[in-house]
Amino acid sequence: MSESVSAARVEPKPPLASLLHNGVLRLVMQRPERMNSLSEEMMAALAAAFAEAAEDPGVRVILLAGEGRAFCAGHDLKEMTAARAHPDRGRGYYEDMMRRCAALMLQIVHHPKPVIAVVTGVATAAGCQLVASCDLAIATDTATFCTPGVNIGLFCSTPMVALSRTVARKQAMEMLLTGESIDAATAKDFGLINRIVPADYLEQVVQKYAETIASKSPLTLKIGKESFYRQLEMPLAEAYAYASRVMVDNMLARDAEEGINAFLQKRKPEWTGR
Amino acid sequence: MSESVSAARVEPKPPLASLLHNGVLRLVMQRPERMNSLSEEMMAALAAAFAEAAEDPGVRVILLAGEGRAFCAGHDLKEMTAARAHPDRGRGYYEDMMRRCAALMLQIVHHPKPVIAVVTGVATAAGCQLVASCDLAIATDTATFCTPGVNIGLFCSTPMVALSRTVARKQAMEMLLTGESIDAATAKDFGLINRIVPADYLEQVVQKYAETIASKSPLTLKIGKESFYRQLEMPLAEAYAYASRVMVDNMLARDAEEGINAFLQKRKPEWTGR
Amino acid sequence: MSESVSAARVEPKPPLASLLHNGVLRLVMQRPERMNSLSEEMMAALAAAFAEAAEDPGVRVILLAGEGRAFCAGHDLKEMTAARAHPDRGRGYYEDMMRRCAALMLQIVHHPKPVIAVVTGVATAAGCQLVASCDLAIATDTATFCTPGVNIGLFCSTPMVALSRTVARKQAMEMLLTGESIDAATAKDFGLINRIVPADYLEQVVQKYAETIASKSPLTLKIGKESFYRQLEMPLAEAYAYASRVMVDNMLARDAEEGINAFLQKRKPEWTGR
Repeated sequence: MSESVSAARVEPKPPLASLLHNGVLRLVMQRPERMNSLSEEMMAALAAAFAEAAEDPGVRVILLAGEGRAFCAGHDLKEMTAARAHPDRGRGYYEDMMRRCAALMLQIVHHPKPVIAVVTGVATAAGCQLVASCDLAIATDTATFCTPGVNIGLFCSTPMVALSRTVARKQAMEMLLTGESIDAATAKDFGLINRIVPADYLEQVVQKYAETIASKSPLTLKIGKESFYRQLEMPLAEAYAYASRVMVDNMLARDAEEGINAFLQKRKPEWTGR
Repeated sequence: MSESVSAARVEPKPPLASLLHNGVLRLVMQRPERMNSLSEEMMAALAAAFAEAAEDPGVRVILLAGEGRAFCAGHDLKEMTAARAHPDRGRGYYEDMMRRCAALMLQIVHHPKPVIAVVTGVATAAGCQLVASCDLAIATDTATFCTPGVNIGLFCSTPMVALSRTVARKQAMEMLLTGESIDAATAKDFGLINRIVPADYLEQVVQKYAETIASKSPLTLKIGKESFYRQLEMPLAEAYAYASRVMVDNMLARDAEEGINAFLQKRKPEWTGR
Repeated sequence: MSESVSAARVEPKPPLASLLHNGVLRLVMQRPERMNSLSEEMMAALAAAFAEAAEDPGVRVILLAGEGRAFCAGHDLKEMTAARAHPDRGRGYYEDMMRRCAALMLQIVHHPKPVIAVVTGVATAAGCQLVASCDLAIATDTATFCTPGVNIGLFCSTPMVALSRTVARKQAMEMLLTGESIDAATAKDFGLINRIVPADYLEQVVQKYAETIASKSPLTLKIGKESFYRQLEMPLAEAYAYASRVMVDNMLARDAEEGINAFLQKRKPEWTGR
């Protein structure tokens, strides 16, 4: 993946722009007229971009943003509604869409590289789920978050899987049952996002934040991210047994030896990713 | 259940008043002289009222409040102490009371309709557990919360089951080990309650908040609440598989079709609860 | 364990000072020149002190503090690096160290008495894990917390086991991926510590806080602490069944009878620990 805006290459404008700079891959959903909804096209583009980024050694950290007034407005209701005309009333189509959407969210969680949501607009339903599924999230002070499925008779059941693992129980339940939006400050209080940055400073702050993480050993980031989510699902004693094994293997990796030596010798480490 | 105060019908005053208005059932514990403690009588009244409300299509949302200076002060220590005179020193009685109390808390969690605690006074021990067990909680700024069992040699072990699933670990532990009260602002910080409302505005705010939720499809609320608690106990990938199935079934329900059509047509949905 | 500073007895200065006063055992790590790192010597001293305190009926509550500008700076990187010269490149040594470190953290969690971290300086890596593993934590406003392993190529995988059970997901992930320090106010927001106290008041506040807990029935504290961590790992219904059994047994203990009688008779209880 070269340092150029791939969006400029093709016509019509692809659903996703990608730009790589200093190890930071910026993916921008660019269907503002459709609120960057998770249409078939958008989900396929995201899945492909994440798959490519997983293999690309030049990508250290991934930013996920949305162009226009929405970060992402969830599923594409027009596509969903069109499927009602199918002989099975859409069941097969919905099953397929839900499978793909869950796979996309799990792809982010299982991705070997940290993924940071950059939220500058509204993040609703599966769009809010995307934010909750990313490892970290930064938002402008005008961003809003919402799981409004309950308002249209379709409870945000899959978004809730990610939301309820990120936000405390009663706060997640309030978002889900009322369908009301929360502002960025509330989202930070709830633990849904990490930082709030004024829009004018967003580019620089996000780039610096991502480059800070991109400067670490990619092997170490991969080891850490993977074990983070795995140990969370284990009882305490089992989690310790597992994490201890991870720690021993990590100690014996080249990058830990180099990192610790550099630290003791007060110099900058040179990562090899091994 | 008609729109009248059932409390007015019988003598002596029943332990629980119930009033239904615009789909919102307000249950008020009215044993202020006993701090609305969870006596045998009170637990039976609550269990019966929740069972009845589960079947009543007119009930969309349930509010649970307490008359007087206590929301609820936990178990009735006089009743508990009296059982020490039994031949088995009370073991059978305590087993029965604990079984009934846990069943009551689980009845709230498994209830098909959202239950909101409205806390205007002290909520201690099993009273604090009631708050933690409700889906949502609103309190006045003078409400307090406490798990003081440790002060009387009886650790709040069952209250802690609900508390530790609502409040972060160290904060729950502090309440349990010190037995000290926290104020409403701290309870909101801890995630034990959702909102704080000045007493003068409580009635209107709570009614509007409950009616907002009551205006949703009852089928959707039922689907969402049930799946919320079920998926919380699953590993991530399993939770997604489960929630995806829930989502597909929900899409094929009449209320989702109506809700999505209404949304796309910019009109108000008409729920049928199917 | 008598009421004297055991540190004064031997030469050279032992790694750990211990002082018992009014049921409160204060353990102070005193290797400030090595940032109180978890060297072999320090881990052995801590394990021995916790084992002794578990058996000593005079100890009701344990405080864990560090002398100097660090609470504890994690593993001893010089010791760890020296082991690279072993024929197995240190694998056996690292396995042993990780086993001992995890055992120490679990010893705190399984300890029959509440353990409170008192943090007056930096708590990094396994030092931050110590704080997260204690039941409660109090810090001065100048304390800082950090999981910086990622900076030296060694992800804080074992610290993360404790951290991610104390702090919400995205907040824990940010600490782990950026390796940046958080201040005491942020640590309190995140739920990693319970209280912040100005350094000038720390001694008195911590002693009073600990004595408040030390004044409870030791049997009740033991029952409560043990069941707290056990029920946390169970599904809700199972947790209620378990906690209900704990509650019944607790009701039949001498201290609960005494505590409840004292409460009903408005007098101070006399604990026997039975």
